[in-house]
Amino acid sequence: MKLYGYYRSSTSYRLRIALNLKGLDYDIEPVNLLKSEQRGDAFRARNPFAGVPMLEASGRDRAQSMAILEWLDEAHPARPLLPADIEDRYICRELAMAIATELHAPLNLPVLKYLTNELEQDKEAVGIWYRHWLEKTLVPLEQRLEQLETGDFLFDRPGLFEAVLLPQVYNARRFDYDFAASPRITAIEEACLALPAFIAAHPDNQPDTPEKEKVL
Amino acid sequence: MKLYGYYRSSTSYRLRIALNLKGLDYDIEPVNLLKSEQRGDAFRARNPFAGVPMLEASGRDRAQSMAILEWLDEAHPARPLLPADIEDRYICRELAMAIATELHAPLNLPVLKYLTNELEQDKEAVGIWYRHWLEKTLVPLEQRLEQLETGDFLFDRPGLFEAVLLPQVYNARRFDYDFAASPRITAIEEACLALPAFIAAHPDNQPDTPEKEKVL
Repeated sequence: MKLYGYYRSSTSYRLRIALNLKGLDYDIEPVNLLKSEQRGDAFRARNPFAGVPMLEASGRDRAQSMAILEWLDEAHPARPLLPADIEDRYICRELAMAIATELHAPLNLPVLKYLTNELEQDKEAVGIWYRHWLEKTLVPLEQRLEQLETGDFLFDRPGLFEAVLLPQVYNARRFDYDFAASPRITAIEEACLALPAFIAAHPDNQPDTPEKEKVL
Repeated sequence: MKLYGYYRSSTSYRLRIALNLKGLDYDIEPVNLLKSEQRGDAFRARNPFAGVPMLEASGRDRAQSMAILEWLDEAHPARPLLPADIEDRYICRELAMAIATELHAPLNLPVLKYLTNELEQDKEAVGIWYRHWLEKTLVPLEQRLEQLETGDFLFDRPGLFEAVLLPQVYNARRFDYDFAASPRITAIEEACLALPAFIAAHPDNQPDTPEKEKVL
């Protein structure tokens, strides 16, 4: 498998975590979003959505991270990302989808660029926008986790939910979101960040991470 | 089952189509988004995400439409929304997720309200925003459908993809999107709109549809 991505793209980070959790081998092919490489003709011919991540696997260029997570579990059933029980699977997908649809999308780079360029919003206004959508989903997410009495992970080990959560928490910290009212979320963050699958997937540790940001 | 929704909410419309396609019985409980009923204490206690749709089913209040679609197929396997083949399932989810994550989210009512109220954008600017995100996903989606040589449906009969596509096409028409370059999408639209499952799910035909908009 070959993963086309960008070190700081949260959806690329999402797939790196999932591939690592499943113990699947993959090569990383960096695509520089700041240079708009994803909109070049060669890349667009393979992925008309012109975004990252793209996973080349089993003869297909796969372009949507949430669909890829489901595919990984179906095509490579060992070390599943989703729990086995139908109700647990629902809960896992509900919380992951809240992040992927309601939270991630308004914070995606193309949206932030539109706010800055077309709508001429300054950095402060973009920061307020960013934290507004974070709060709108992270507060109810924390309530759901409270109801479920979660500890280190949503279920007994990290999977699809944690692969979607951690990149968003990473982004939120870059935008100075206040996690004081999110003890369940930060407990999961802390537990995950100690694991090799998450450490290897972190934006600080990628082949395209700028030298001054590298940690490992 | 009881579906809490709003006649014009595209994610409520999505679930109505899916439930009809599967032939499952459900009652509709209207939630008036214009009166912010979804943010009332009683509703929020059941659904902290404070949005519609919410599906009360098998003893749980379910709050995320994409997770509910997956759950419906797992808990009620007859008349599946997803095809059986793993690669076809991937394709179906990829195209549905492109709409649910990249397209739907920036066009959601709370985002449009933020643009109007907090960012003081006028109706014209909101319309430009709306059509910008429609084009960004509907153009590559049309290319994917072209590659797949689709006819009336993505596969042999309508399912998860069509349940997600049709409500977005309905919204796009309300915002005067030009479908001239989308022949595959409009072919699927036309085929679906002729089917009882889609007719019964349409925003024109709901218990909370205002009298002047009712068709049936």
